[in-house]
Order: sequence, then C-alpha cells, then structure tokens
Amino acid sequence: MDKLVERIKSDGTVFPGEILKVDNFINHMVDPELMEEMGEDFYQHFHDKEVTKVLTAEVSGIAIATPVAKRFKVPMLFAKKSQSLTLGGNVYTSRIYSYTKEQHFNLRVSKDFLSADDKVLIIDDFLANGEALSGLVDLCQQAGAEVAGIGIAIEKSFQAGGEKFRQAGFDIYSQAVIVGFTDDQVIFAGEEDKD
Amino acid sequence: MDKLVERIKSDGTVFPGEILKVDNFINHMVDPELMEEMGEDFYQHFHDKEVTKVLTAEVSGIAIATPVAKRFKVPMLFAKKSQSLTLGGNVYTSRIYSYTKEQHFNLRVSKDFLSADDKVLIIDDFLANGEALSGLVDLCQQAGAEVAGIGIAIEKSFQAGGEKFRQAGFDIYSQAVIVGFTDDQVIFAGEEDKD
Repeated sequence: MDKLVERIKSDGTVFPGEILKVDNFINHMVDPELMEEMGEDFYQHFHDKEVTKVLTAEVSGIAIATPVAKRFKVPMLFAKKSQSLTLGGNVYTSRIYSYTKEQHFNLRVSKDFLSADDKVLIIDDFLANGEALSGLVDLCQQAGAEVAGIGIAIEKSFQAGGEKFRQAGFDIYSQAVIVGFTDDQVIFAGEEDKD
Repeated sequence: MDKLVERIKSDGTVFPGEILKVDNFINHMVDPELMEEMGEDFYQHFHDKEVTKVLTAEVSGIAIATPVAKRFKVPMLFAKKSQSLTLGGNVYTSRIYSYTKEQHFNLRVSKDFLSADDKVLIIDDFLANGEALSGLVDLCQQAGAEVAGIGIAIEKSFQAGGEKFRQAGFDIYSQAVIVGFTDDQVIFAGEEDKD
C-alpha cells in the first residue's frame, strides 16, 4: 500500500536492532484518516472472504482493526494481555513472547466471542518473528474457528514469521513489506536495487 | 445518547460490586458501527471547541477515541500503561489506580506529542472514581496543554469522579449516565422514577 510505505519513509524512525518506530502515526499517536484508508485497503484485499469477525491483539492492533471491521460490518475482537475482573475465567489462552516489551504475555479471548462458526480475519500492526500472530492463530484454532486471512500493516520479511505462516498455507497480505535496513534507512520490497 | 443507553440495556451485564460489563460491544468485542455513531455524537457536542488532539488511555479508550479524532481531523493519542523499548524516557508520567484491575499503573505520553499549543479533547470509556481521568488531565497539565473538553461513554454519576471534575470547571459530556443499580438492573439518569 503506497500510502503507508510513503508515510513510513517520511515519518518512521529506525532504532538500533532493526526496530522501526512508528509511534507518531500508528503506535502511540494515531492518524485516524490513515487507519481508515488502511481499513479500506484490507477490505479490498479480503472482501471475497466471508469474514464474520476481525481479531487483533491489544494494544496497537485496535486502531487498525476497528475500521476494517466497520467496512466488513462485523465485530472487532481484541485479545487481552492482562487479566481483569470483568473478563472471568471462561477464556481461550495462548502464551506469547514480546520482543519489544521483553516479556511473556497471555493472550486471552472470551469463549463467548469466538466459535467454530467464525471465519476470522486477523489484523495486526507488525509481523516479524510471528509471536503475536502465533497466539492469535492459536486462539482461533482452540475455538475451532477458520482463519479466513491475515492482514498485517508492516511486515519485516527478513524475519521468520511471514514465511512460516505462508508455508503453513495462510493467506497473508502485508501493506508495507520491509526487506531490510541500512543504517537509518528502511528498504522496502521492490526497492532493493535502487541506489 | 439514546442508542448507547439502549445497547447497555439490551447487552450489558451487571456484576456484583456495581460493575457494568460491556465486553460484548465496547471493552473486548467492539461494535465498530456503534463506535462511529458515538464518535459523531461526541463531535456534535464538542465541535465548537478548536480541538487539536484527542487523548485517551489504552486499552479500552482507543476504539472509542479513534472515530472522534477522525471526525475532528486531528491525531488520536493514547497514553500507554506499559513501558516499551520504543517509547523511551522522554515522557510525561502520571500514576493512577485501576479498580477493575486492582493495581497501579503509570500513564505515559511522549513529550513529542503533547504541548502547550494543544487543545485536548479527552475521551474515555468509563468515568466512576475518576482515577484514569485524573491521570489524563494531569498529563495535559504537565504539557501545559488546554483541556478543551472531556467525553465519556458511560458515567457512574453516583461515584465521585464526575462531580469532582465538573466542580473544577471541566466541560464533561457523558453519553450514558448511570445513577445506580438495583439487583441486575441499571438505572439511567432521567429514569429514576420509572417503576
């Protein structure tokens, strides 16, 4: 998706360890108009799937997934990382590791909201090692739900997650694909030969 | 806002301790069309304020605040509860207590995204004791930003938060105002004399 790639080029910041910071338009301060356009783009890609639910993980997936769900006219469900008094014990749980937060989390969804009748479009902000995605797919499989597709805002294709899930047969669409970094520059798919 | 009140009546669940659970359309599974209509309703109430930024707290405020920000054509900023590698140390911090999670949190926003030039519309899902709201107002004040208004989805007016902030001069608009509970029923403002 050209608009997201251009925005990363103009506003993204590269940190040591091949970390791309998009805190000024996705992960902390959010550009709601860009979210709307990304939602439309995901819809155009997956509109022929009979999606019944959009699933993401708190926190950063929520602002991306909500406009997608609106476009499909289905609920958006976000997996929770923290236990709360209102969630209760009737949940599917999957344990994942966050490299950016350097800790393990349990992703939880209520069994009331995910079932074998669901065709789920999974949406997330980043795909790198695929830890969060593993958890979201696992939650769907525990519920017997079908994963209809996986929509990612920014994929680091030089890390293992994308290939692992494509080889397993999942339909993954990433709006911006990063093939590598040089110094403080991001190299996107299709741009490897420039310079 | 009638539509939100009706939805709480049909789909909300009352738990012991005067806890209202709206996990099936706001706090875990989200109805994106309702979020859109709530965003429009907040815009209609606050449209004459020259809002430059919409501020909320992760997690549950994000899906509500994003459509509001889209309507105002301004960024949505969410205060973070957990430290991450990408946030860094250049932050305003306010310590709050969550009654539903029974623990303290630090709310953090980057100093890059909130300044004395900002007129901030604060949006949150619940207002009860006003703990989260205190933190959000505090973050604005640390930045020297003006709080242009406070939009709340569900206010429990029998708890102290709303009165405290109105007496302090803040312009608070709540879409659904709960004056109390009887058994498993919610009593809304204006409905106290029914039955």
